Amino acid sequence: MNLERPTLPDAVAQESGGKVVLLVADGLGGLPHPGTGLTEIEAASTPNLDALARESVTGLHVPIAPGITPGSGPAHMALFGYDPVGCVIGRGVLEALGIGFGLAEGDVAIRVNFATVDAEGRITDRRAGRIPTEKCTELAERLDRIKLPGVEVFVRPVKEHRAVIVLRGAGLEGGLNDTDPQATGVPPLPFEGVAREQEKTAELLRAFLGAAAEMLKDEPRANMLTLRGISTRPDIPTFGERYRVRAAAIAGYPMYRGVAGLVGMDVLPPAETPEELGAALEGAYGDYDFFFIHFKKTDSTGEDGDFDRKVAATELFDTVVPRVLAVGPDVLLVTGDHSTPAALASHSWHPVPVALRAKSARVDAVDRFGESAFASGGLGVVRATDLMALMLAHAGRLAKFGA
Amino acid sequence: MNLERPTLPDAVAQESGGKVVLLVADGLGGLPHPGTGLTEIEAASTPNLDALARESVTGLHVPIAPGITPGSGPAHMALFGYDPVGCVIGRGVLEALGIGFGLAEGDVAIRVNFATVDAEGRITDRRAGRIPTEKCTELAERLDRIKLPGVEVFVRPVKEHRAVIVLRGAGLEGGLNDTDPQATGVPPLPFEGVAREQEKTAELLRAFLGAAAEMLKDEPRANMLTLRGISTRPDIPTFGERYRVRAAAIAGYPMYRGVAGLVGMDVLPPAETPEELGAALEGAYGDYDFFFIHFKKTDSTGEDGDFDRKVAATELFDTVVPRVLAVGPDVLLVTGDHSTPAALASHSWHPVPVALRAKSARVDAVDRFGESAFASGGLGVVRATDLMALMLAHAGRLAKFGA
Repeated sequence: MNLERPTLPDAVAQESGGKVVLLVADGLGGLPHPGTGLTEIEAASTPNLDALARESVTGLHVPIAPGITPGSGPAHMALFGYDPVGCVIGRGVLEALGIGFGLAEGDVAIRVNFATVDAEGRITDRRAGRIPTEKCTELAERLDRIKLPGVEVFVRPVKEHRAVIVLRGAGLEGGLNDTDPQATGVPPLPFEGVAREQEKTAELLRAFLGAAAEMLKDEPRANMLTLRGISTRPDIPTFGERYRVRAAAIAGYPMYRGVAGLVGMDVLPPAETPEELGAALEGAYGDYDFFFIHFKKTDSTGEDGDFDRKVAATELFDTVVPRVLAVGPDVLLVTGDHSTPAALASHSWHPVPVALRAKSARVDAVDRFGESAFASGGLGVVRATDLMALMLAHAGRLAKFGA
Repeated sequence: MNLERPTLPDAVAQESGGKVVLLVADGLGGLPHPGTGLTEIEAASTPNLDALARESVTGLHVPIAPGITPGSGPAHMALFGYDPVGCVIGRGVLEALGIGFGLAEGDVAIRVNFATVDAEGRITDRRAGRIPTEKCTELAERLDRIKLPGVEVFVRPVKEHRAVIVLRGAGLEGGLNDTDPQATGVPPLPFEGVAREQEKTAELLRAFLGAAAEMLKDEPRANMLTLRGISTRPDIPTFGERYRVRAAAIAGYPMYRGVAGLVGMDVLPPAETPEELGAALEGAYGDYDFFFIHFKKTDSTGEDGDFDRKVAATELFDTVVPRVLAVGPDVLLVTGDHSTPAALASHSWHPVPVALRAKSARVDAVDRFGESAFASGGLGVVRATDLMALMLAHAGRLAKFGA
């Protein structure tokens, strides 16, 4: 007999059950301030999060694996219950999805940086002086007119120096190396170790870069491009197929909208402030079973290495909580996708606080929201990929496994 | 494109970063004394370990899996981040490496016990009365002269009744059963269930045993051999290849030197006392990125079932800590490879205390070193195999995974 290993929780997911809100503060976890011993969350005044902690089962989650610092893509894939290591999403695909570009099966998407090169072709500014988004839009429109034999070419602006190229046609492949050398004083990198099946794509991109360099040669700053994350959309089952929920994403920043779209969530119009996030949830609450709500500022302030501004961002995030509770979700899980300690000014591997509020939660004694308090919470330390099953279970959406 | 699942942390390891010391007290974990309720560590006076606990993030590690008691080989492989179940090292290979024998690819190594048999060939003493090492050396030199057709034969003394045989030649295979019956009153076991590809090796070893029995027949005690752990060196990537560090091992006992050599660490000259361990670290500190330091006495006293001597050994281990801190490592992780409770007088499966000291550690409220205190530490309960990634992350040696 061949017993295939069932995929959980997918195998027991039911169409009926309560409504779930997954509220994510990007980069939520932090590190203690050397002066006070308190992390950003612990230093912040967070009455709503603290009240939530008292009504929740709490713990910490490890985004990918102990010691592993996740990028935004893998961190969110893990929160959504997808194996973040086995299912890597290219940066190009993420950026394309993030601007709402409708990627088709087989499209190759590429993250583009406008850059400045000197007369010898050496990069002097990897971000072309962070040209304004208007300029980026103008240049993208110009490059969008480039024609390549046998494929369609799309060039779309993202923000400042960032844009996206999509090639559409038969026989295209991702996985070519980045041409961004991650350094100045050197020219962009050539493609190396190109596999036979990647040759067509490499050839087309070389032709594109040649045409683009010619078009941009008189630009004072954005006179060159570098390419990153040359990739195709991974073939994965959707959120709806796996968990049998109608899911919606409420987020402002392209990357997170992109990942949510990739797993098949309906991506609602952009929302960023607590008011916008709350209003979007209220407006769509009747139409979906599962909501992913993304709050960005806790991450960006951490990445800036600004402890006080991260504290302020956490206090702003605190005001999202009552707006979410106002719709009366059956399950609310509040967490981050990863830690972004101001002390490191970057993403990190440190476990992230999780509070899960539901009627069936085994509420613990933890009475305030924070890394130290949650370390002794009733959930213990879990993997991010386990959170989806916990949310669905508490919503009554998972049947018994086995007789 | 086929993106194979990347192996973490290998896929993100960088060549630059801070220096790491992994300080292992063998068999560190214990069980409470029935009279006091305190474990060996908790009963010991350990001012340096307690101070370390206050500056560290703490927790417990599970060496192999819950309930599984590890041997020294698997326990150390796990600490080094190698899957201890998928990558089993034969006892023969460990013994050979431990005496500094340069095992080549394809060599078959065998752990040998000198034993005493009676006139009927039944074992009366499995350790030949623990003959002195000098006698073992003399006998090994005698047996080393045995010639076998088509292969080279090496016989080397280890200690007391223990020796090593290595066969070198084409077509040899490990995996034959041990001939030590683990009992007296019965003869050594024959080889059973020999696979076709093992037949040549079995035949050679039978011939060797015949010749050895003839050579030893007049010995009063060591008149027979038993064979254990008939094995070849596993084909695994080295520590340096995986983690991009230059690694050195500082240890006194052959087994641990052997495992460290197997994963490709430079094995420094033997050191055992706190003074020797500290001096070895200081002397080599400039030349390596990663140091594995092994302290043995916490295990041997536990195996003797001697609670008080294990307490004393733990207090001696405590004095290693300041000697290690004196070199100023960026990351110091102090733990054991497994527990060896005096109450059980053997290795055990109980989780082992871990203290990780680094600038980026999320220091918890734990203020003393010990099993009970660390159970509420900020690391939670982790697998031993996760510790390498944590050490490397805290040393700034791991790049972000994914965009």
